[in-house]
Amino acid sequence: MDTRTPAHDHSPWLPFESRRRARDEKREAVLRTAVQLFLEQGYHRATLNEVADRLNITKPALYNYFRSKEDILFECWTIGQERVEDRIAEIEAFRESGLATLRMLVRAYAVIMASTFGASLVRFNAADLTEANQKVTLAGKRRIDRAFRKAIKQGIADGSIKSCDVKLTAFAILGALNWIGHWYKPDGALSPDQIADDFAVRLTADIAKRSPAIRPQKKLPATKSSGTVRNTRKK
Amino acid sequence: MDTRTPAHDHSPWLPFESRRRARDEKREAVLRTAVQLFLEQGYHRATLNEVADRLNITKPALYNYFRSKEDILFECWTIGQERVEDRIAEIEAFRESGLATLRMLVRAYAVIMASTFGASLVRFNAADLTEANQKVTLAGKRRIDRAFRKAIKQGIADGSIKSCDVKLTAFAILGALNWIGHWYKPDGALSPDQIADDFAVRLTADIAKRSPAIRPQKKLPATKSSGTVRNTRKK
Repeated sequence: MDTRTPAHDHSPWLPFESRRRARDEKREAVLRTAVQLFLEQGYHRATLNEVADRLNITKPALYNYFRSKEDILFECWTIGQERVEDRIAEIEAFRESGLATLRMLVRAYAVIMASTFGASLVRFNAADLTEANQKVTLAGKRRIDRAFRKAIKQGIADGSIKSCDVKLTAFAILGALNWIGHWYKPDGALSPDQIADDFAVRLTADIAKRSPAIRPQKKLPATKSSGTVRNTRKK
Repeated sequence: MDTRTPAHDHSPWLPFESRRRARDEKREAVLRTAVQLFLEQGYHRATLNEVADRLNITKPALYNYFRSKEDILFECWTIGQERVEDRIAEIEAFRESGLATLRMLVRAYAVIMASTFGASLVRFNAADLTEANQKVTLAGKRRIDRAFRKAIKQGIADGSIKSCDVKLTAFAILGALNWIGHWYKPDGALSPDQIADDFAVRLTADIAKRSPAIRPQKKLPATKSSGTVRNTRKK
């Protein structure tokens, strides 16, 4: 079958693009169901039979989309990782100050951590993956680490962030963020956006240099006493 | 055999207390080896055969000390949890301010996270435990959460900590701390004490009220100008 032949209007088959879309949708449905089950029951306890049951298909039908349970686990991780990397690329393209970049990274990562695919970055054990895939996840983790460290270093260089131990600072921030993947519940009091907004400020508060807007008096030279004089006159 | 009978000097058996100690030491050696292997290879990949091999004993000999692999996993968790709870009890007994208590909790928890039994609180999956044991670990997690929240609440009440969302603050702090169990390497640049000292300040910096030592002028009432006068006289 030449898949590039455009489908005719009266063909009993869906056009190729639609079929590919349908296949992608089904593949994603398998992933969504699997990741949910893995998070609920743990990867080892969860069975592909139950994934299939929840989707009203047979277990062999799953193998149209994935080679193995491990393949599904790795794919869930990949989706979470891609989302983080896409956001990092977007944020870095803004070319903002180090502090602003760091805050955007915290915000974006927090929202992803509160999603199922995001949580799969921290809730599953890399030891359950093949050695080749373990290496891929390790490299992915390092890229995230590097993005946070880069923003912190840039902030120290451009004066928006106080001098600090870059590595420990990144570890502290990423730890607080990764923990969201463990405690966040969709039916909780706070939405992912609310958590993200809070954490963007909270996790950077101790290293942010006070902006001129907060302490304007610091920007005024000592000789500028005319303002005080005028205020006195008004009394 | 009546175990309460004191052993005679010439008995070919060790006195009961010594035998119990030897048994406890062996049990702990099994745990130490197992937790190390579980952390290195992941709980599911690690085998009791390898634990036995590393101890120069047979796998059946392990069953003198533990009923199952899950039993060992739970015991590793228990040791980590007990260490944390012991430190919490000690720290709470000091009856310091909320901020001082929180900083001591951060310090103590950081040091424990950088140990193998401490790491087992966050590196293993509760889903691998029996349901009864899962409940125990969940309750243990809650007790830790509660201790941190209590210190924060107390700090807000006694004025040492700024008004803040207690739950989110505790989550952010515990997240940063739990992450240590993932990234800490015994051969790394920083010792557990150095990390603990850094985190005790870092993780509480944004919620700590400035101490009088830093801003003494805030503590002086406006009428107390005598001090200034005296200083002027000395000039």
